[in-house]
Amino acid sequence: MLFKSLVLASTASATCLHGIHKRATGDVEISDFGYTALNGPMNWASLGPENEACKTGKNQSPINIDDSIELAAEKPAVTIQEGPVEFLNLGTTIEVVVNGTTSFAGAEFQLAQFHLHTPSEHRIGEEYYPLEMHMVHTGITDPAAITVVGFMFQVSKTASDPIMAGLQPHLAAIAQPGTKTAIEAGLDFSALLSHIQTSDIFQYSGSLTTPPCSEGVTFLIARDPLPIDVDTFNEMKSIMKFNSRFTQNTLGAENLVAVANASGTSSQWNVTTPAHHAAAAAPAAPVAAPPAAEHVSSSSISVTVSAQTPNPHKTKGRGRGRRYA
Amino acid sequence: MLFKSLVLASTASATCLHGIHKRATGDVEISDFGYTALNGPMNWASLGPENEACKTGKNQSPINIDDSIELAAEKPAVTIQEGPVEFLNLGTTIEVVVNGTTSFAGAEFQLAQFHLHTPSEHRIGEEYYPLEMHMVHTGITDPAAITVVGFMFQVSKTASDPIMAGLQPHLAAIAQPGTKTAIEAGLDFSALLSHIQTSDIFQYSGSLTTPPCSEGVTFLIARDPLPIDVDTFNEMKSIMKFNSRFTQNTLGAENLVAVANASGTSSQWNVTTPAHHAAAAAPAAPVAAPPAAEHVSSSSISVTVSAQTPNPHKTKGRGRGRRYA
Repeated sequence: MLFKSLVLASTASATCLHGIHKRATGDVEISDFGYTALNGPMNWASLGPENEACKTGKNQSPINIDDSIELAAEKPAVTIQEGPVEFLNLGTTIEVVVNGTTSFAGAEFQLAQFHLHTPSEHRIGEEYYPLEMHMVHTGITDPAAITVVGFMFQVSKTASDPIMAGLQPHLAAIAQPGTKTAIEAGLDFSALLSHIQTSDIFQYSGSLTTPPCSEGVTFLIARDPLPIDVDTFNEMKSIMKFNSRFTQNTLGAENLVAVANASGTSSQWNVTTPAHHAAAAAPAAPVAAPPAAEHVSSSSISVTVSAQTPNPHKTKGRGRGRRYA
Repeated sequence: MLFKSLVLASTASATCLHGIHKRATGDVEISDFGYTALNGPMNWASLGPENEACKTGKNQSPINIDDSIELAAEKPAVTIQEGPVEFLNLGTTIEVVVNGTTSFAGAEFQLAQFHLHTPSEHRIGEEYYPLEMHMVHTGITDPAAITVVGFMFQVSKTASDPIMAGLQPHLAAIAQPGTKTAIEAGLDFSALLSHIQTSDIFQYSGSLTTPPCSEGVTFLIARDPLPIDVDTFNEMKSIMKFNSRFTQNTLGAENLVAVANASGTSSQWNVTTPAHHAAAAAPAAPVAAPPAAEHVSSSSISVTVSAQTPNPHKTKGRGRGRRYA
């Protein structure tokens, strides 16, 4: 019984039927997880056995999008229905329920909602963005198939993207967790849809970034950010506060919870080749070779380091570097 | 020998003599850790045995500053020397070497440097800020005593704090890791020093937020943020990209690496009282009682949840909530 529950939880199909498809009726249901200490992503697996993938999955999201992530071979064709939308505060995010359909890779998807994370969950070339938008779709013929179209937002001195400008006047109405409001005029998605055509779109297979962290989720993420003005960003941040899962390991590599637990044990250091054993602590996780190395000298020591990619397995100079809080 | 090394690494005293006191001469030494996947904070303990506290320490920084954190009984008295400063890119942060002295709690401290994190490492009442500044001091009579004075920065439509305005013209010169530049005119600390007098200052004993994560570090953090303009923030972010350790557990509670590893095991769920066993997985970590609960209904289920503080030990309704990536 337990085993069956875990198997179900390990695929995205376990979640969409009673999760993403749900619409708020009456009051708004608040999520039962959070982003702080024991409520946070390090402890999501304690919420229930269905969250096993949060600590064991090897294709977890979000990730740092590096050169190993390829561009989508085609653009998703997104159509969004005009008209009133609902704007909700779920405690862990603010969300807009909106109808639309998206064609991608020969399949049709139903847009269920979009929601926001601050700061961004994904990073692009190591850099984060202050806001990330996730448009969550489920397959029309295969409701177990989940596709998320993601956009980064950069703070701008001037105007916001029209969607953010459309949400701004309604933020005060959903400032408290568990509240919702109707945006009768709807939202203007035109700039967003154009952006899909002009920006590169990365594609990879990852996971839900919230419990139960189910895998098999297709992420399509625009490389170029959209603008959000200062006041709107600051107001959204004051409502969401912080709702970003920490960056996960390279796709296919050991879950970082397992890596963290195996790292730094006495047995790891009580050997003559610590670099080898450090690598053994996370066997499936490749470490990129430093692209360029330079000899850096200081007043007391001399070590060879990479200018771009610090190598965690380097042993020379350990414990002798500049320290700061 | 190994044991001695671990003991030394577990206190802040092990790091300041060959770390914070060091000045860059010639080229800039680059840090040997990072913020991504195997280089990142989940795996810092693999860098060397001196980093043991990163995965075992129970008073680790950064934290979410909640009502349990008290205000400092006095204001730190900070004096900063005018004149030229050095501005460095260490790969993991951008840093200014500056001389000054600070009196606090009957002791005198030497200001060694300040550096920046983006997004902020600490959160105040759950909210993060886009930038956090750490002024790192060591004790003059006791060099093992480390005090960090921290400031948050909020993105502003108008002018930056004078320090950020003073750094901005020099960002291009230190865009690459391992570079440095001199700022001959120095920096204007007057607004920052005034801010210490006008803002509440939180105080707690935590750790370095970078390897070796040594504990016994006094943090003094201003509650109110200072302003940074959009262009300066975006440029700093493009250089630092992301350098924020994930929020640690409540002070005194189990390190989150241990919590994460113990959570969600089969033995945890193969019992009749999972809530009790979930709590047992992290015995030292207190969970705040929900300050207010409300009955929230949806179309298919009915659960009792907290409007403010989701309870990770709640079992009703698990796996049935709204899911999103």
